[in-house]
Amino acid sequence: MDEEEETEEADADDEEPGMTTDATGTSVTEQALAALRGTTDPRLRELLTGLVRHLHDFARETRLTQEEWEKAIAFLTATGQSCTDTRQEFILLSDVLGLSMLVETLGGHHTPGVTESTVLGPFHMTESPVRALGDGIDLVGGGEPCVVSGRVLSADGTPLPGAAVDVWQADDKGYYDVQQPGVQPAGNGRGLFTTDAEGRFWFRTCVPAPYPIPTDGPVGDLLRATGRHPYRPAHIHFIATAAEHTPVTTHIFVAGGDYLDSDAVFAVKRNLVQDFAMTDDPPLAREFGVPNPFRHARFDLVLERAS
Amino acid sequence: MDEEEETEEADADDEEPGMTTDATGTSVTEQALAALRGTTDPRLRELLTGLVRHLHDFARETRLTQEEWEKAIAFLTATGQSCTDTRQEFILLSDVLGLSMLVETLGGHHTPGVTESTVLGPFHMTESPVRALGDGIDLVGGGEPCVVSGRVLSADGTPLPGAAVDVWQADDKGYYDVQQPGVQPAGNGRGLFTTDAEGRFWFRTCVPAPYPIPTDGPVGDLLRATGRHPYRPAHIHFIATAAEHTPVTTHIFVAGGDYLDSDAVFAVKRNLVQDFAMTDDPPLAREFGVPNPFRHARFDLVLERAS
Repeated sequence: MDEEEETEEADADDEEPGMTTDATGTSVTEQALAALRGTTDPRLRELLTGLVRHLHDFARETRLTQEEWEKAIAFLTATGQSCTDTRQEFILLSDVLGLSMLVETLGGHHTPGVTESTVLGPFHMTESPVRALGDGIDLVGGGEPCVVSGRVLSADGTPLPGAAVDVWQADDKGYYDVQQPGVQPAGNGRGLFTTDAEGRFWFRTCVPAPYPIPTDGPVGDLLRATGRHPYRPAHIHFIATAAEHTPVTTHIFVAGGDYLDSDAVFAVKRNLVQDFAMTDDPPLAREFGVPNPFRHARFDLVLERAS
Repeated sequence: MDEEEETEEADADDEEPGMTTDATGTSVTEQALAALRGTTDPRLRELLTGLVRHLHDFARETRLTQEEWEKAIAFLTATGQSCTDTRQEFILLSDVLGLSMLVETLGGHHTPGVTESTVLGPFHMTESPVRALGDGIDLVGGGEPCVVSGRVLSADGTPLPGAAVDVWQADDKGYYDVQQPGVQPAGNGRGLFTTDAEGRFWFRTCVPAPYPIPTDGPVGDLLRATGRHPYRPAHIHFIATAAEHTPVTTHIFVAGGDYLDSDAVFAVKRNLVQDFAMTDDPPLAREFGVPNPFRHARFDLVLERAS
């Protein structure tokens, strides 16, 4: 009965388009959607229409109050104001809400055997220094030394020489170079490698450790309010790029480590978990320039041919 | 068929909770929702659950791309960084998307005869100076002088003496005092009045003009991309507060003005449109201290008794 009455009220409003009196706010939503009809870019119109629909449905379903809206405005403002040249709190927010990983997953290619993608994360903000195959990227030392090696391949197994392998990771204390200017040298934990004639890459580093995402900003407040830990399982970031292939942005996760099943940013995929196997092979250790025995992660990065 | 296959894939993932491999991103959404279960405040849990559901549904339905996501991150970051002590770009964004008005409408009281509410807007950021009944709030002059008068009443018609009437408006050029420090004196266009023994209020001001919301920030970019004008119809803001009553935050709109049916922030309600009638009454003009004839807006602010 009440609903019918409201509907009649809403009908009455239709006499004066652009004005709002019904208690459900339906006419506000209709006006906000109508205001998007002049958007010339059809894709932008589609995105904004979906955004307004979901935003309004969210407010209507939860009966969002003025006070809660004010808190949300303050939270988003603080998130924007936390961003600097070396910190991207909005990406972090998107990460902990699972949005970044969802967008990643929706956009990924799903050909079996092709290396799966995962989130870029907020720390790919400087160019990785160009390094020669075999170089170390741990410029400070202290962590457990290891070797990472493999090939960049096309989906049919063909090796891809001259492919770019962009690598970045936190140090053994869990910090990226950009988080500790003056403490870590710029470029620590980063390297841009080019595969050899057989499509191979290899470099020395330290075994990465799990680390907490930054919790001293609004996203940290959100994690505390939701009783979540801020940890990411140990990983190394990769972007592999080769001519005539679709690049892949991904991580390699250290098998057997903590937080693999509760990554704060939901970025773990089973096929990205790799063994960092303890290897006792003195000639190979000498070849790589590491003490024997050493830990060795071996995997291929497989790219899809661009269509 | 495809959907069934995907479901089976998702089932297979269930063996390793916390990892993501299905192409629809369903398991990311499930993980992000599961991560909210530890939220101790049940209302916060409800709000965040609704937010994650709608955010993920939006991304999935529109198949939001990585590039679009990056643009959205940059837009939100710029919106946060545009905020200052005297500018609230996130409120403006909420306003032009119709969210502010929707939240206002959902929270409003709907008793017939009670003054309807509308958005607070981004310019109620300083305390209005206390003024005596009859004072002018236009400290600069230049606009068309007018008188605003009325009573604050309880829903049953009882006058409410000692009620607070907080008023703010843009000057005749369309700017609030906080937008022009050094040009307008602080408190220009603002006043905090107290109703007399009969619940009456009255003050002098200039007839407000339509004005554009600020368009030099990210929200301006959004309006241009959607082909929308930035104008608000001419209005005066009010917050009326009285003991044992629910306060009302509202506007009075000038009848017959432009943009009443296309307010950039969707805040017009029919019952809030008031005639600023040209009045030829020399004794009354003398009483109010304005030249005759003068424009006169007369209306009551009717509050609901707090339950």
